[in-house]
Amino acid sequence: MIGKDTQALLLENQDNFLIPADNVATVMYNHSLDHALLVLSNVGYTKIPVLDKEDHFVGLLGLNDIVRKMVSLTDIDTDNLAGLTVADVMEIGVDYLTDESDLEDILHLLVNNSFLPMINKERIFLGIITRKEILKCTNHLVHDLERRYQLVPKEDKPRDTDKKAGLQVI
Amino acid sequence: MIGKDTQALLLENQDNFLIPADNVATVMYNHSLDHALLVLSNVGYTKIPVLDKEDHFVGLLGLNDIVRKMVSLTDIDTDNLAGLTVADVMEIGVDYLTDESDLEDILHLLVNNSFLPMINKERIFLGIITRKEILKCTNHLVHDLERRYQLVPKEDKPRDTDKKAGLQVI
Repeated sequence: MIGKDTQALLLENQDNFLIPADNVATVMYNHSLDHALLVLSNVGYTKIPVLDKEDHFVGLLGLNDIVRKMVSLTDIDTDNLAGLTVADVMEIGVDYLTDESDLEDILHLLVNNSFLPMINKERIFLGIITRKEILKCTNHLVHDLERRYQLVPKEDKPRDTDKKAGLQVI
Repeated sequence: MIGKDTQALLLENQDNFLIPADNVATVMYNHSLDHALLVLSNVGYTKIPVLDKEDHFVGLLGLNDIVRKMVSLTDIDTDNLAGLTVADVMEIGVDYLTDESDLEDILHLLVNNSFLPMINKERIFLGIITRKEILKCTNHLVHDLERRYQLVPKEDKPRDTDKKAGLQVI
């Protein structure tokens, strides 16, 4: 349970976490892996969402998923990609958000995902939420918290952070 | 400036952010790009630190840096990597931490980097700090903050978060 003031401060400078679909590079599931490799190389990302023709989200495609298909027992060769499509190597069953996900869901799922696709009830791809945006908000929260609020320990919860107050970061 | 109680709560369950060098996949600057591609494919990461023979940190190598070299005007071919080494494509002049960096530095630099190499005064590679570890701590902070503390607005700082208390995440 995230407190009301905490959430308000975390989200204060951020009207919207979502990078909308129009601003996100994607590939179609039936594109050739050669083409997908060019797309990934051009956009400079290492993992992008895979959509179908009706903009439904169907999976994620990572550079590593393609490179692994290039590697055979005897060589590394882009010829090994011949005839394969995005659907043959994409990751399915991945974590995602819906337009009803709350901040708890987002923060929890971003621990193990560098970004999360967001979809609606019809599985239409709406965009992504990235760790980077959350990091910006975390910076704002931790810098402003004690400038704006006095933190008064609650009586029924022993304040056991004192013993670690001098903890080293490294 | 990050407050003492805020920092203590953020770091409470985390003795150490650093993933030590022994647990981090790396490549040598003079390795062939074919070899580096195999290493990246095997470890499943998309960017790893580049070291010299004395374990000095010299740069970062990303899968995209290699793939871009495969792409010529007419084809995508691993033959285009022939004769190239990691040093030919690695990113230099990248952000890094030292063993004297504080939490402010780490949080600030992680906004634009998915991980940060840490080095000592002799530029020996010590390990990396990742967004993932910070996200774990952020989760702990925002969940426990108002459970453990009452947030009392400071009188000389107007509490202007109220107007956004009902802000939607998306």
